[in-house]
Amino acid sequence: MVRAAVVGATGYAGAELVRILSGHPHARLSMITSRQYVGTRFSDIYPSMAGIVDLTCQPFSEEAVSEASDVVFTALPHKASMAVVPGLIGQGKKVIDLGADFRFKDPALYEAWYEPHQAKDLLESAVYGLPEIYFSEIRNASLIGNPGCYPTSVVLPLLPLVKARFVDLENIISDSKSGASGAGRSVSLATLFCEVNEGFKAYKVAEHRHNPEMDEVLSLFAGRAIHITFVPHLVPMTRGMLTTTYVGLKESISTQDVTSCLDIFFENKPFVRICPPGKFPDTRHVKGTNFCDIGVRVAERTKRLILVSAIDNLVKGASGQAVQNMNIMFGFPETAGLDQVPFPL
Amino acid sequence: MVRAAVVGATGYAGAELVRILSGHPHARLSMITSRQYVGTRFSDIYPSMAGIVDLTCQPFSEEAVSEASDVVFTALPHKASMAVVPGLIGQGKKVIDLGADFRFKDPALYEAWYEPHQAKDLLESAVYGLPEIYFSEIRNASLIGNPGCYPTSVVLPLLPLVKARFVDLENIISDSKSGASGAGRSVSLATLFCEVNEGFKAYKVAEHRHNPEMDEVLSLFAGRAIHITFVPHLVPMTRGMLTTTYVGLKESISTQDVTSCLDIFFENKPFVRICPPGKFPDTRHVKGTNFCDIGVRVAERTKRLILVSAIDNLVKGASGQAVQNMNIMFGFPETAGLDQVPFPL
Amino acid sequence: MVRAAVVGATGYAGAELVRILSGHPHARLSMITSRQYVGTRFSDIYPSMAGIVDLTCQPFSEEAVSEASDVVFTALPHKASMAVVPGLIGQGKKVIDLGADFRFKDPALYEAWYEPHQAKDLLESAVYGLPEIYFSEIRNASLIGNPGCYPTSVVLPLLPLVKARFVDLENIISDSKSGASGAGRSVSLATLFCEVNEGFKAYKVAEHRHNPEMDEVLSLFAGRAIHITFVPHLVPMTRGMLTTTYVGLKESISTQDVTSCLDIFFENKPFVRICPPGKFPDTRHVKGTNFCDIGVRVAERTKRLILVSAIDNLVKGASGQAVQNMNIMFGFPETAGLDQVPFPL
Amino acid sequence: MVRAAVVGATGYAGAELVRILSGHPHARLSMITSRQYVGTRFSDIYPSMAGIVDLTCQPFSEEAVSEASDVVFTALPHKASMAVVPGLIGQGKKVIDLGADFRFKDPALYEAWYEPHQAKDLLESAVYGLPEIYFSEIRNASLIGNPGCYPTSVVLPLLPLVKARFVDLENIISDSKSGASGAGRSVSLATLFCEVNEGFKAYKVAEHRHNPEMDEVLSLFAGRAIHITFVPHLVPMTRGMLTTTYVGLKESISTQDVTSCLDIFFENKPFVRICPPGKFPDTRHVKGTNFCDIGVRVAERTKRLILVSAIDNLVKGASGQAVQNMNIMFGFPETAGLDQVPFPL
Repeated sequence: MVRAAVVGATGYAGAELVRILSGHPHARLSMITSRQYVGTRFSDIYPSMAGIVDLTCQPFSEEAVSEASDVVFTALPHKASMAVVPGLIGQGKKVIDLGADFRFKDPALYEAWYEPHQAKDLLESAVYGLPEIYFSEIRNASLIGNPGCYPTSVVLPLLPLVKARFVDLENIISDSKSGASGAGRSVSLATLFCEVNEGFKAYKVAEHRHNPEMDEVLSLFAGRAIHITFVPHLVPMTRGMLTTTYVGLKESISTQDVTSCLDIFFENKPFVRICPPGKFPDTRHVKGTNFCDIGVRVAERTKRLILVSAIDNLVKGASGQAVQNMNIMFGFPETAGLDQVPFPL
Repeated sequence: MVRAAVVGATGYAGAELVRILSGHPHARLSMITSRQYVGTRFSDIYPSMAGIVDLTCQPFSEEAVSEASDVVFTALPHKASMAVVPGLIGQGKKVIDLGADFRFKDPALYEAWYEPHQAKDLLESAVYGLPEIYFSEIRNASLIGNPGCYPTSVVLPLLPLVKARFVDLENIISDSKSGASGAGRSVSLATLFCEVNEGFKAYKVAEHRHNPEMDEVLSLFAGRAIHITFVPHLVPMTRGMLTTTYVGLKESISTQDVTSCLDIFFENKPFVRICPPGKFPDTRHVKGTNFCDIGVRVAERTKRLILVSAIDNLVKGASGQAVQNMNIMFGFPETAGLDQVPFPL
Repeated sequence: MVRAAVVGATGYAGAELVRILSGHPHARLSMITSRQYVGTRFSDIYPSMAGIVDLTCQPFSEEAVSEASDVVFTALPHKASMAVVPGLIGQGKKVIDLGADFRFKDPALYEAWYEPHQAKDLLESAVYGLPEIYFSEIRNASLIGNPGCYPTSVVLPLLPLVKARFVDLENIISDSKSGASGAGRSVSLATLFCEVNEGFKAYKVAEHRHNPEMDEVLSLFAGRAIHITFVPHLVPMTRGMLTTTYVGLKESISTQDVTSCLDIFFENKPFVRICPPGKFPDTRHVKGTNFCDIGVRVAERTKRLILVSAIDNLVKGASGQAVQNMNIMFGFPETAGLDQVPFPL
Repeated sequence: MVRAAVVGATGYAGAELVRILSGHPHARLSMITSRQYVGTRFSDIYPSMAGIVDLTCQPFSEEAVSEASDVVFTALPHKASMAVVPGLIGQGKKVIDLGADFRFKDPALYEAWYEPHQAKDLLESAVYGLPEIYFSEIRNASLIGNPGCYPTSVVLPLLPLVKARFVDLENIISDSKSGASGAGRSVSLATLFCEVNEGFKAYKVAEHRHNPEMDEVLSLFAGRAIHITFVPHLVPMTRGMLTTTYVGLKESISTQDVTSCLDIFFENKPFVRICPPGKFPDTRHVKGTNFCDIGVRVAERTKRLILVSAIDNLVKGASGQAVQNMNIMFGFPETAGLDQVPFPL
């Protein structure tokens, strides 16, 4: 059993890590830390876990965490991660960071959208933890920059297409919709029940920090610069993310052809499900799972390809993908701990 | 007082008409009809109205409706409208039809998306009831084809722009999101609480019947063919519709410039509110109102204009706009009966 | 036109006062104050009001408020009210306080559940603003203690019964369920969307501060001590409150008899609607209105009377009732400003 | 591996059985039947299951089901069960019926609330499948009447108390609140999204069919007649049920004493969790699990005991409990297939 520590276990992504790791067949949750809840039992914060996860939150200490674990998941706000990750790496730990600090190859891009980077020397060896692209790099990595939720849902359906000659890479728009858990567990007026319920809105229109992340990942994969027009929206539900991507077509192609193209690309990827032509995903169908469901349609009249992708923002969009990365790093089956039967509703 | 009848009063749009007309200062709700609920009091179907609207549902009869009313609102499924509207027009009544049967100028387009048209001769004189374009035509009309909810939210923000030379009309995408009341009150598996709640999905991807409607309206207004790529989505909430429209830019222009352009176009339109730069609408802020709120942003990196528009699908998207049309037809203040103070939450 | 000021206008109850007063035919909203938002336009805090209520929030000052108003609504946390109300009363203003500070006749009871009272001398003249009991006292009052939301929903259906000999006053249980807006607009973990949505829970079980309030009101009305067992619950919705009250029966009585008893008691009360036997209220049917809907059933097998009452917690449970009190104090029609046609959904 | 068939697999309870059985370590889902969906793949009805449960729905046939299975779960409307269960029992199958047909010991009681019983001879040997009472009877049973959701939530917290002398058995009230999935997957106006969302109501007030069920179970357990006053309510959420039970006290007793009493009674029951004094359950904390969480408080002022119990109506209230029964019948660990780590949100 691999010993896994979660640093920042009481936020929503941290708690979801605790859930998945607690049921993992090859990992043991060995330590959880929290700034705010030191000395509190996890199940007092998340009472659903009573009798199941009764670990007590520890303060973070590089030594204690390193001693207790083989792999460390850091689920911290950006900036906080880069303060602790170098030390953990220095102790020889494998680290999977769920924040933004180790997702970018280009430190200037990170700094343009976030802030001065304090651990630039780690960026080169850090691997972007999207297993559908970087499986072999992940296997050998010590440090994973776990992808953002929006980039995961935007990038996955585009991967099979960006090298296809029928696609106009100048003309990609992603319109994303996320459940409220994406905003995290910090208290704020904007995430109060009465401010979210029975409303729908766009936010950070064309200025969300996940935009440069998806651009960089796609550009590196395509071998040329790609800039996506990206607008995120808030859906009055807890979990789930759906992205509708519009791609210009340079040549005529059928829905069936594109579906086949995706089927082939994702053939051995256990967490991507391609809908048959005429069917589209619903976030309900991936809730609580690590799946990304993708539906496709060519709009003949306007010569555009429409891709609809759905994930659970807390699972494939965060903690599930992080565990998938751990599985690959340690040679476990890729689906270990992530193969719960989904809920029908 | 103008006497108003609602034919098909027990569906959601019909009931919303009943609400608005019951509080109208210059109209009196004189008759309501229903196929399903003949003999039932309206307040037994909608108990919120107990003591307020206790009218009894009548069966439809051309004579009875004509005798009882000066203006008739038909809130029927398409096809059902064209069976009754010609008779009512023949009786000299003014008719505002909330269905699709009298929205199209081109009967072939209607027939391609709906079914054979039984009252083509009325199409020429019917006026598309979008007051922000057709105010003077509405004033003189006998028959109004009241716009669909999606076309209202898509078309309004585009109007000030389609004649501007900086806009690429080949490159317009509208990604719309609607609350569940848009599906109406008919029972179906897809609209059960448990099938909608905590889920988000696209539907009728690039094949929704409102797509040719918005195309025709914009084309006529622009004086050239426009084809919008349109995908509707279902939001787990009762009321509200938000549309995010992406427009290609041929020239560089600032967010402020576009905002000013919209401000000028809608200056005297009482139901369109333009957000200041940096602000965007939320469907919560138009709930229960006849407003269309619009926010704007130019995405410089990708040379695209982003328009976000919010309406209440049952008000500006249906019954409120219908009453606005009645107001114009009868020379009432445009806002009569539609000027309730909105709810803060 | 009466000039009305709202002190504490930016909380949910304050904002609802702003909504109602802005549409009132005999009152003019003359001033709004806020601690947190001094200098901000109301419509920047509640964008639904853009173009409708563009007043700017002022700091509280006894002089400025008094000069600007004939009646002052104080929508402040308890304790904050008693710091400002005596001064306003001293300036000769009529005051309607939406907090708890002036609801109790017995200062010891207040102090047992809240804190030391700083304005005890006002308690005697303050009138409990439940018009269905204290109409004539309200008419002559200078200071109203506006009832809590839970007491309103608990007390109203019991009023016609507490003096009836068939009721066992030792045996009254009220199980209440409230939408999340009852918790107010202050940020807290417990009211985040993801902490409320898709959950249902009891809270402050048998220790909610509204319990002694309802006990005192009923006791004074009945002329003998009444102690209700009271448990509030949180419903994942924004507005609405439903209370199910269980009353022991000493004698056999029919559902129809109790219904008649309520019909008679509330005959001229414009905001109480009694459901016919076999029908029960739904909070949806009173949303946005000042109604209290009440349904009744005698459970013969267990000899208990069941009363179900529904209100909108922000309207009849707070701001609507406050305006109803103002109407009575100033001799306006009791329903002035409160007679919007309800929404069908 | 035990072979398990689900008869009526496409309703919500049936689908939840499919979920649980598909992940069960000692059972194999060998056949699913449906009237409505014969020939359709389960994953086409519940797309979350794509790639996981691709079984095709069969028509029901006693022979085919018997041949394919060792245990049969019947998730049918009442009446439909008693038509098929005798045959399956005759074939020597173990049957767990999720409907009401085999829950009652007294056929007259069943017939008073449901309809004429067609398989009365099976009632005597049928065991009421509440493992917290009837563990040993279940172990030896061939036919289980799986408890209703409301009775499960009402009965469990009362079990430790009904024989205690401090409890007044004449004075028990249960006020229950259920998510909308309890109404099942049949289409009806009352369960449309817009008819449930943002509303809260009581229904079948003191006349729900689960009332005589809970009365009979408690009466048999207590050895004397018990009649509960029971009112169910509908909560705008998908899953979850919370019951607040009010019990008269004959003697003074502390919250701690009652808590200890429950702790002892449920000591070895793996699915009942007793909250420490001062804490109460939330349906969110049992969502997707087979737990029943119980909180307790003595209201000293009114001499009443308050019990709050929460379950997932589809799991402990239906399909999870059914699988728990199967586990006991076949000698599997009681928690087999039911020990997924709960979701934190």
